Amino acid sequence: MDMLWNGWGDPAKAAPLPDTVTGLLRDLLGVTPRGTPAPALADLRPPAVTARPAALKALAEAVGGEEHVRTDAESRIRHTRGKSTPDLLRIRAGDLTDIPQAVVLPAGHDEVLAVLRACAAHGLAVVPFGGGTSVVGGLAPRSALFVALDLRRMSGLLDLDPVSRTAVLQPGLRAPEAEQRLNGHGYTLGHFPQSFEWATIGGFAAARSSGQASAGYGRFDEMVLALTLATPEGTLDTGRAPRSAAGPDLRQLILGSEGAFGVITSVTVRIRPLPEARVYEGWRFGSFQEGTAALRRLAQDGPRPTVLRLSDETETLIGLARPDAIGAGPEQSGAGCLAITGYEGTAEDTAHRRARAADVLTDGGGTLIGAEPGEHWAHGRYFAPYLRDALLDAGAFAETLETAAFWSRIPELYTAVRTALTDTLTQAGTPPLVMCHISHVYENGASLYFTVVSAQGEDPVAHWTPAKHAANEAVLAAGGTISHHHGVGTDHRDWYVREAGPLGVSALRAVKRRLDPDGLLNPGVLLPTD
Amino acid sequence: MDMLWNGWGDPAKAAPLPDTVTGLLRDLLGVTPRGTPAPALADLRPPAVTARPAALKALAEAVGGEEHVRTDAESRIRHTRGKSTPDLLRIRAGDLTDIPQAVVLPAGHDEVLAVLRACAAHGLAVVPFGGGTSVVGGLAPRSALFVALDLRRMSGLLDLDPVSRTAVLQPGLRAPEAEQRLNGHGYTLGHFPQSFEWATIGGFAAARSSGQASAGYGRFDEMVLALTLATPEGTLDTGRAPRSAAGPDLRQLILGSEGAFGVITSVTVRIRPLPEARVYEGWRFGSFQEGTAALRRLAQDGPRPTVLRLSDETETLIGLARPDAIGAGPEQSGAGCLAITGYEGTAEDTAHRRARAADVLTDGGGTLIGAEPGEHWAHGRYFAPYLRDALLDAGAFAETLETAAFWSRIPELYTAVRTALTDTLTQAGTPPLVMCHISHVYENGASLYFTVVSAQGEDPVAHWTPAKHAANEAVLAAGGTISHHHGVGTDHRDWYVREAGPLGVSALRAVKRRLDPDGLLNPGVLLPTD
Repeated sequence: MDMLWNGWGDPAKAAPLPDTVTGLLRDLLGVTPRGTPAPALADLRPPAVTARPAALKALAEAVGGEEHVRTDAESRIRHTRGKSTPDLLRIRAGDLTDIPQAVVLPAGHDEVLAVLRACAAHGLAVVPFGGGTSVVGGLAPRSALFVALDLRRMSGLLDLDPVSRTAVLQPGLRAPEAEQRLNGHGYTLGHFPQSFEWATIGGFAAARSSGQASAGYGRFDEMVLALTLATPEGTLDTGRAPRSAAGPDLRQLILGSEGAFGVITSVTVRIRPLPEARVYEGWRFGSFQEGTAALRRLAQDGPRPTVLRLSDETETLIGLARPDAIGAGPEQSGAGCLAITGYEGTAEDTAHRRARAADVLTDGGGTLIGAEPGEHWAHGRYFAPYLRDALLDAGAFAETLETAAFWSRIPELYTAVRTALTDTLTQAGTPPLVMCHISHVYENGASLYFTVVSAQGEDPVAHWTPAKHAANEAVLAAGGTISHHHGVGTDHRDWYVREAGPLGVSALRAVKRRLDPDGLLNPGVLLPTD
Repeated sequence: MDMLWNGWGDPAKAAPLPDTVTGLLRDLLGVTPRGTPAPALADLRPPAVTARPAALKALAEAVGGEEHVRTDAESRIRHTRGKSTPDLLRIRAGDLTDIPQAVVLPAGHDEVLAVLRACAAHGLAVVPFGGGTSVVGGLAPRSALFVALDLRRMSGLLDLDPVSRTAVLQPGLRAPEAEQRLNGHGYTLGHFPQSFEWATIGGFAAARSSGQASAGYGRFDEMVLALTLATPEGTLDTGRAPRSAAGPDLRQLILGSEGAFGVITSVTVRIRPLPEARVYEGWRFGSFQEGTAALRRLAQDGPRPTVLRLSDETETLIGLARPDAIGAGPEQSGAGCLAITGYEGTAEDTAHRRARAADVLTDGGGTLIGAEPGEHWAHGRYFAPYLRDALLDAGAFAETLETAAFWSRIPELYTAVRTALTDTLTQAGTPPLVMCHISHVYENGASLYFTVVSAQGEDPVAHWTPAKHAANEAVLAAGGTISHHHGVGTDHRDWYVREAGPLGVSALRAVKRRLDPDGLLNPGVLLPTD
């Protein structure tokens, strides 16, 4: 099944907004229904393929046949850009700049190497394509002539080592299939980002994904033990032990390289036994500050829940912590700040951690409100992107952004980003609702995830862009990182360059030049082009 | 206080071998006392300084005065090489190749930058020098004209953030002083490698150190949150959040760079509250295989002790698990394999983990032998390098090496390295005693640490070198990493190059060329020179 071409996910799961929400949007944000319906896929006329027949022939040879080099309009449109709100608005507006020349489907590492050689020979850029779920412009290279390298034919579980508890996965394997395959052997990866239903193993690695159960299972970059990278200059294999003192950690140079250094063709991950027990519950705190302090205590002194998140007052009030019940009103969502805790593991360990964490949360001012909000959150955890489509359909604008910092910077970072978003959009005439939650905690800091909803206005991308830029400036000024888990892509690149600093960036460019001397790979993604 | 110039540590702590050990060495390994006494420091005549006066003047200007540029014989000799057994044997033999031209002592980041500029201008190489404890030839560059950049004047605790639980430390701060300073604020770093008494924060970072309490506190590379690097091309600052998706993790590119990319001038580390409780105890297993399986269960399913180590049968029999009681005989050391477990934390958490871990260890075939062996190990944990000096004095040869791999490769790796060492030294006429322990465990693998004792023979370095090379080959062939925590230096470089692969090495060389275009920094350490 293919994802909705101009929105998110399984088309069958799309649902219109409840009337309560439509009313809320109208009354609160002045949202009015869109005048023009979005075009259908069949109505779009992509620009003609200008890559030469010899190039397409060489690609077909590289991947074992013409049937694996697709140049039809639908295939190309379905590989145009990713799933940020501006991406969706552009494709809904019929904007097909950024369309690939062709979609190429290699069946293995050697075919990927062959594709890279063919592209080098014919001057084509290459954009690795997993689930296509980038929300930071990671699939929109600075190149008029590129192919999308779709990794769906490389979707196997190649090996499972129950002694070392490792599994070797191919990059095109989607998260649900990875879980299903591992579950069949009694294991789980434990990686459940919001993009779970569509995103792939290779994408998780390339973009340093972090899942909703990161407090218990860790980030994806912490799960990766070994990687194989296909580059225009050959193969790079890394990871002979969980940890090593043999030089810099090359795995951590590939993780987060977003396809700019090479194509990840194999990922060895840590796996864990399927949990015996699984408990989710809700807590209420009087304020975001109070809740943050309680989360910090758990992150620093334990016990660590498997899932730990806290919505601010606005997000709690709107009920976004429970996306499938949004707008049900304060009698449902309640006042203060909703926190969700989840515990997975053996029955004994889960019970122990839960009881001890309850003491810490209670001591920190929290009130247990029972299992229902937790189960509700877990049930609706992948629903938010569907909700965004419904909001866009209804004439609202909705987008998210995220950052992370050390704990002592979190209050300032929260206020700075919130203010930047609110002020910029209000000045642009589309006063927003800005909501925030903490969803990833560490001993030394946490992430902040913001959701913005406003009226679309006449030109929603034009309204949003300055607000997004102001938020990026606020993130850097307040000591945050430009991305905790969405990545850099093209949207964050200019701020990333400032975060990494001139010497850091030029060290990475030196690596890129060595691995990709012709600059074929994702030009302009992550790093600026020359 | 300076370290013993031709041995390890505090000269006051040196102790001769007990007669029991001397007898054991003679009867078991044919060790005979050395004929010639080692020379005194004052007897050594270093080669003259050939660096030009203008160069020394420029260095003095860079560091605020001539008193911070030392060219006296003693200072230069004390900065010649590190503390591997071949290093000690060479310096005891009066071999002063590898001596620096001068010892330069900068007082801060800007002075380091100024030193690098002066060295670039005058064609001098630079070897960053912390505690001087390298055991892999990390202080012996491929350069006839270099200065040792001693960081002892940069030894401050610059900042402590109790909310984020982070501290900013200077690179020349030695581990005991770092602990003392942090302890004064109620915190600990929790990093206790065998080099603890002398090694520095900058060295821990540059060489990816791992301490004896790594099961509980993590490796040093896991403790580092931010770094500042002074390079010939300027300053690289990295680390704005505990974790980030903003590109590759530049921290992990600097960690393990062993002074070849720049001089680490500041390290932000995670700190933890001083533990309320501390319990160490000993367990006995019937075999190394049985004990390894039990350690793996704790590492994978928990609860994780703070310290977890297991000696093989030979190490247990010899009693090296208790270096200060070595040679006390089997009635003291006992049969089977000794494991040490340690728990540090709150009283409640420690008690809980200890009880649960005891169930796992018992279930895995272990027998608790009480607190005494654990306390004994903890008491003698920094004693082994002193023991080595006494062994060298007595005419024995003693050296260590270490590796790590995924759990499923551990049995093969253990056998392969043990066999390589035993066969090579036996063929060379100095049949060895080879002992091994696991001292660092991860969910997916573990380290193996080997200790080799033999007769010195006529030319001990000539006897040892082929054995070390055979062990390195065995490590790579059996799927291990060339170093779990000692690093690469010059001794492991040729095998490291094979482990990292040609493309990995050339990516790192591209980084080096960008940060250190003239190749001033530790030439030949970590990476081959051109």
